[in-house]
Amino acid sequence: MKPLHIGLIGYGFMGRTHANAFGKVNNFFDLAYKPVLKAVCARDAQKARAFATQWGFESSETDWRKLVAREDIDLIDIASPNDTHAEIALAAARAGKMILCEKPLAMNGPEGKTMVQAVEKAKVPNMVWYNYRRVPAVTLARQLIAEGRLGRIFHYRAKFLQDWTISPALPQGGAGLWRLDVKVAGSGVTGDLLAHCIDTALWLNGGIDKLTAMTETFIKQRKHTLTGKMERVGIDDACAFLARFRNGSLATFEATRYARGHKALYTFEINGEHASIAWDLHDLHRLQYFDHRDEGRLRGWRSIHVSDGDQPYMKHWWVPGLQIGYEHTFIHQAADFLEGLSSGQPAHPTFRDALETQYVCDAVLKSARTNRWEKVPGQTRG
Amino acid sequence: MKPLHIGLIGYGFMGRTHANAFGKVNNFFDLAYKPVLKAVCARDAQKARAFATQWGFESSETDWRKLVAREDIDLIDIASPNDTHAEIALAAARAGKMILCEKPLAMNGPEGKTMVQAVEKAKVPNMVWYNYRRVPAVTLARQLIAEGRLGRIFHYRAKFLQDWTISPALPQGGAGLWRLDVKVAGSGVTGDLLAHCIDTALWLNGGIDKLTAMTETFIKQRKHTLTGKMERVGIDDACAFLARFRNGSLATFEATRYARGHKALYTFEINGEHASIAWDLHDLHRLQYFDHRDEGRLRGWRSIHVSDGDQPYMKHWWVPGLQIGYEHTFIHQAADFLEGLSSGQPAHPTFRDALETQYVCDAVLKSARTNRWEKVPGQTRG
Amino acid sequence: MKPLHIGLIGYGFMGRTHANAFGKVNNFFDLAYKPVLKAVCARDAQKARAFATQWGFESSETDWRKLVAREDIDLIDIASPNDTHAEIALAAARAGKMILCEKPLAMNGPEGKTMVQAVEKAKVPNMVWYNYRRVPAVTLARQLIAEGRLGRIFHYRAKFLQDWTISPALPQGGAGLWRLDVKVAGSGVTGDLLAHCIDTALWLNGGIDKLTAMTETFIKQRKHTLTGKMERVGIDDACAFLARFRNGSLATFEATRYARGHKALYTFEINGEHASIAWDLHDLHRLQYFDHRDEGRLRGWRSIHVSDGDQPYMKHWWVPGLQIGYEHTFIHQAADFLEGLSSGQPAHPTFRDALETQYVCDAVLKSARTNRWEKVPGQTRG
Amino acid sequence: MKPLHIGLIGYGFMGRTHANAFGKVNNFFDLAYKPVLKAVCARDAQKARAFATQWGFESSETDWRKLVAREDIDLIDIASPNDTHAEIALAAARAGKMILCEKPLAMNGPEGKTMVQAVEKAKVPNMVWYNYRRVPAVTLARQLIAEGRLGRIFHYRAKFLQDWTISPALPQGGAGLWRLDVKVAGSGVTGDLLAHCIDTALWLNGGIDKLTAMTETFIKQRKHTLTGKMERVGIDDACAFLARFRNGSLATFEATRYARGHKALYTFEINGEHASIAWDLHDLHRLQYFDHRDEGRLRGWRSIHVSDGDQPYMKHWWVPGLQIGYEHTFIHQAADFLEGLSSGQPAHPTFRDALETQYVCDAVLKSARTNRWEKVPGQTRG
Repeated sequence: MKPLHIGLIGYGFMGRTHANAFGKVNNFFDLAYKPVLKAVCARDAQKARAFATQWGFESSETDWRKLVAREDIDLIDIASPNDTHAEIALAAARAGKMILCEKPLAMNGPEGKTMVQAVEKAKVPNMVWYNYRRVPAVTLARQLIAEGRLGRIFHYRAKFLQDWTISPALPQGGAGLWRLDVKVAGSGVTGDLLAHCIDTALWLNGGIDKLTAMTETFIKQRKHTLTGKMERVGIDDACAFLARFRNGSLATFEATRYARGHKALYTFEINGEHASIAWDLHDLHRLQYFDHRDEGRLRGWRSIHVSDGDQPYMKHWWVPGLQIGYEHTFIHQAADFLEGLSSGQPAHPTFRDALETQYVCDAVLKSARTNRWEKVPGQTRG
Repeated sequence: MKPLHIGLIGYGFMGRTHANAFGKVNNFFDLAYKPVLKAVCARDAQKARAFATQWGFESSETDWRKLVAREDIDLIDIASPNDTHAEIALAAARAGKMILCEKPLAMNGPEGKTMVQAVEKAKVPNMVWYNYRRVPAVTLARQLIAEGRLGRIFHYRAKFLQDWTISPALPQGGAGLWRLDVKVAGSGVTGDLLAHCIDTALWLNGGIDKLTAMTETFIKQRKHTLTGKMERVGIDDACAFLARFRNGSLATFEATRYARGHKALYTFEINGEHASIAWDLHDLHRLQYFDHRDEGRLRGWRSIHVSDGDQPYMKHWWVPGLQIGYEHTFIHQAADFLEGLSSGQPAHPTFRDALETQYVCDAVLKSARTNRWEKVPGQTRG
Repeated sequence: MKPLHIGLIGYGFMGRTHANAFGKVNNFFDLAYKPVLKAVCARDAQKARAFATQWGFESSETDWRKLVAREDIDLIDIASPNDTHAEIALAAARAGKMILCEKPLAMNGPEGKTMVQAVEKAKVPNMVWYNYRRVPAVTLARQLIAEGRLGRIFHYRAKFLQDWTISPALPQGGAGLWRLDVKVAGSGVTGDLLAHCIDTALWLNGGIDKLTAMTETFIKQRKHTLTGKMERVGIDDACAFLARFRNGSLATFEATRYARGHKALYTFEINGEHASIAWDLHDLHRLQYFDHRDEGRLRGWRSIHVSDGDQPYMKHWWVPGLQIGYEHTFIHQAADFLEGLSSGQPAHPTFRDALETQYVCDAVLKSARTNRWEKVPGQTRG
Repeated sequence: MKPLHIGLIGYGFMGRTHANAFGKVNNFFDLAYKPVLKAVCARDAQKARAFATQWGFESSETDWRKLVAREDIDLIDIASPNDTHAEIALAAARAGKMILCEKPLAMNGPEGKTMVQAVEKAKVPNMVWYNYRRVPAVTLARQLIAEGRLGRIFHYRAKFLQDWTISPALPQGGAGLWRLDVKVAGSGVTGDLLAHCIDTALWLNGGIDKLTAMTETFIKQRKHTLTGKMERVGIDDACAFLARFRNGSLATFEATRYARGHKALYTFEINGEHASIAWDLHDLHRLQYFDHRDEGRLRGWRSIHVSDGDQPYMKHWWVPGLQIGYEHTFIHQAADFLEGLSSGQPAHPTFRDALETQYVCDAVLKSARTNRWEKVPGQTRG
């Protein structure tokens, strides 16, 4: 196995999922490459070292520029907050590193475009961690659609519901809470949650032509952790939009952090002429499937427990009936990336793929301001 | 339409379901017979009159012997407590009346046998209200099994769970509580709940060869409503048994009134070589179906919403997607009984069919006393 | 009991549900009034007579004007297609009859307004059959909201999904298919399905301030049953809209007849500060409830089997655990109407209540044309 | 962190789950010990080496006696077929090694007893991998019961349903199929599946007093992989038993590999005076909980998504709403074992605990032969 030397930036929730993926992927997948955890980078030296110890990184850094400059690093993995993605990616591309980037790609479309141009100019392998594509049930959905089983698509609906920011006492900003600070996050649920829904939707159902959106900020002011003062909340607490896909299907999308009872309820459903599919992150190991071609008396939604060897990714795991969880989606994505390095068929979504999601997010936020239908800028999908 | 003059005995829970069935059946089914509610009989004259008014009976009686003697009555419907079934049925058979009887048929097998002999000697149409056969989903299950879709049957499991007698303060005996009085009910959950499970099982899976059972009475003494004194509780509060069917399949059965959280959770599941079926009274309009012959990747339990016109009984009701409820099972049974009068093909279960269930119940109670496996006495099923 | 003489117009799906409600209501509810089925009216004399026989109407008519003129009729119940509602209601109001009208009230808001004015001028009791308010689970939801258990409301989402018009071979117009003919139906899913969603939403969550909508007609031409020719389809096959309620909550609504796998999946969910509620017509006897005030470790969505005597309407039916079905919602509404006659507190929704739903539907259809946010005209809710 | 040098015997399904647990545990738990993967042992040298490479073991062995003799090994982990457990464990105890053993402990009770005596005499830490205790939802169930929330227990029911041996073409014996060979496995579903159900039950509900069982071998002969000949099948394909716990509760247990549609459906339900609990391995991240003390109108089964930081083990993983899977139960057990080494409070189940499960299995198999109720030999539970 060829070693692939990883430099990880960020040690938070996403840093952990990525480190875990690199650490486990070779136990379960037969690959030509083996990730080697060279260094983790974080501003706080002590926390960086502790993370390195816990996850088996050989070293730690406190300045990402140093990490990018290190010659013993092949790949820069960006798991730091959204406002750092572009600057790091541009530097890493200039340094000729492979780049993995946590989603969303950028703070907005134009910024994302510079990143796409940089990696394409540098010809470096690149990928964005839209991990939910690699839930086996979601990949199975993609297969079914690609096989034409659904026929003409009429409807797509997705939502991502959470309830963790309902308390007005929750501050904004700082570790773990930067997602509430618009300067760091770029947006609220649109970039955080809807971006996932959009990435999946574009993958499953093709491009979105136009949309009309509304956003709301239910709690107008929150104490900022860094300043200690009450400050205006700049993010969207909730967002919903109607859309028309290029294939003629109609869609509704919604995300919020104010839906009591839902921790991370990402769901989608797609209705076709012949069959329908539904999925739910709270039971990610199941796919719901309805096929109108089944005998009439016996038609029903099938609850498919996606844990068999003939279902995507599952032959690498345990035995039928035994479910995997959230973290495995990152392991799958790491495996596909490494496989892509070997095969020369890059794994998706690339930066270019992720830019399209960024454009949709931009159109959503714009529509919420203009109160009008907005076109999504077109680009050819990779 | 030919009138069929009904005399109903009993005005309790079951009296209401039967009266409703007779009153509605011609609205929804095209039949040659039309039930006419001639008289209701109950010991309390005032209650009998009130029931007659509410349900549209032309008259009321307080002595069932008088009712049985009335020449303007074609059919005696027995909806009074278990300990009255045999005496009434024998008299009604002697009087040449058609007889419908609420389940269980009798206090025990030998008593039931006299009833079978009486109706067969008198050659009067007869039927027992094991209504759950006529849940459309259950009838659909029967069709699937009859078509051989399940292949060889390996397992049958049924349970009927309730939680309404957990409080020690609940008395035994008297109106609404006679089911706790062994002298009136004959047994506890065995005759009340397991009898339903057994009737369905015999219908779906054929005869039971032998079984081993346990029963328990959790609350040993309860105040008797009639005497006002604490008295020993004679019924079985809970009962479970293992069984072997004649077709070689293995079974577990259980019933209790001490299962917190379950009001009337009658469930069964049947596992065959090729397919499995499951059903649940709490969502009686659904059938769960798994077919191994479905394509591997897409196998899953189908949740069939049994509300389409091509599913049993449903063309008589509303439109697809709109569910019916509990009471409709009695309407279906009434319709089938009336249809059987016209066609000469009697509706089931007849008294003879119900006697087989009685024999199984007897074997269950016997095994619980002997702590041994007991054979179920054989009889040819009608 | 005082007789209330009913004249029913229409013998289709809705005629059956209403006739059944009038026929059953006194069996289950103790009321001062007793509906008497005097006459049913339909253009086809033979079908009218057959319906009268099946449902026990004393007579039949073929001209609704004659029915309205009959002195032996107290109440006109309109169950004929949408384009007939206004003319009949106006005449019935002039004749001083009580009026029940199937939903939607009218072809559009202005027409509905004339109906409201007519019944209010005539001071006749009036009600519209938005039956889903009387699903016990939905009424329970209303109670919980009225008690303030949810706290501030953040989100409302509703959809009504069907799949029965996907085939292009399905014609438009004629018996059973007038819902596809815009001249008779007024609109497609907006008036047929969204009207239900809107009625419930206004009842549970108050008025809608503004909205933005899209509609689509997937099948552009269908053969018209009456002309035998392919004709342009004028109805909306699918419709979705975003809305802002007056209480500040955000909403998404969607209806379609092109969602494979769903027969009549009307669902709503409402998310409040403290608790959330969800409901689903395919399992109408259940309410999903999540309460954040439950102990943390043990929080979860409760699946409430609404079949207990302390839950709305259920003491009138059977015993806990035994579900009722679709038709019972009409019986409940009939009971409430009759009770309202006695108490002088009219049952809702009245024509005036239903007009508000009509205004929302109008705004939806307008927005779909203008591609803009539209305000819903305000009126005080009855 | 102190290194703990592991020698693993067996590279099959269980070898992988154990290796994974040792490899991951320090990433997620802060522990004083760190497992070091010194050596894996398997008869096939090439496979042993391949496994060592894939999982990062420093060396491999082909003779378990050599492994046990190695001084650089602290702990022997037995993941080889059932018929090897005792011999290895006895040798390892003599060598003073800590011992972990895959379940079931032994081929039968008497053999297990020698193992308990050996480890207790040698005073070596020991544990059996009954991993399902460490499903967070199952641990939560244990907490609730220990807190007395259920009150008096009336019922326990468990089943473990699979469908992978229905085909008569499936051979017995050899790699992956030794579970069908009675000489290697000791029994069929009793030791393989029911043992899990029994371990959980004893942990949650205390000891079993007596039981009556039945077993069946549906396919009487299968080709043996090693001999190439059709041979009599000696295992039990299916097993069910009734039991009475020492606390007076009644139980039903069932396991089979002939239940179409179920891959690994281990479920249990426990009904108490005040509350009930249910769990299902196919959705292992959920716990179903019903509390009768909830307000009457709003009582329902709560579907608890066990993924919050205040629920057992979950603070070590991701964020609320993101589920873990099967393999994590082994990581939890490894963490608890290591924690036990530090604290001096040994993790359970020890060999002694597991022996009690063995005695129940023995009683089950005996009862299936005698067709009588059998007492379970008593021992004090550790």
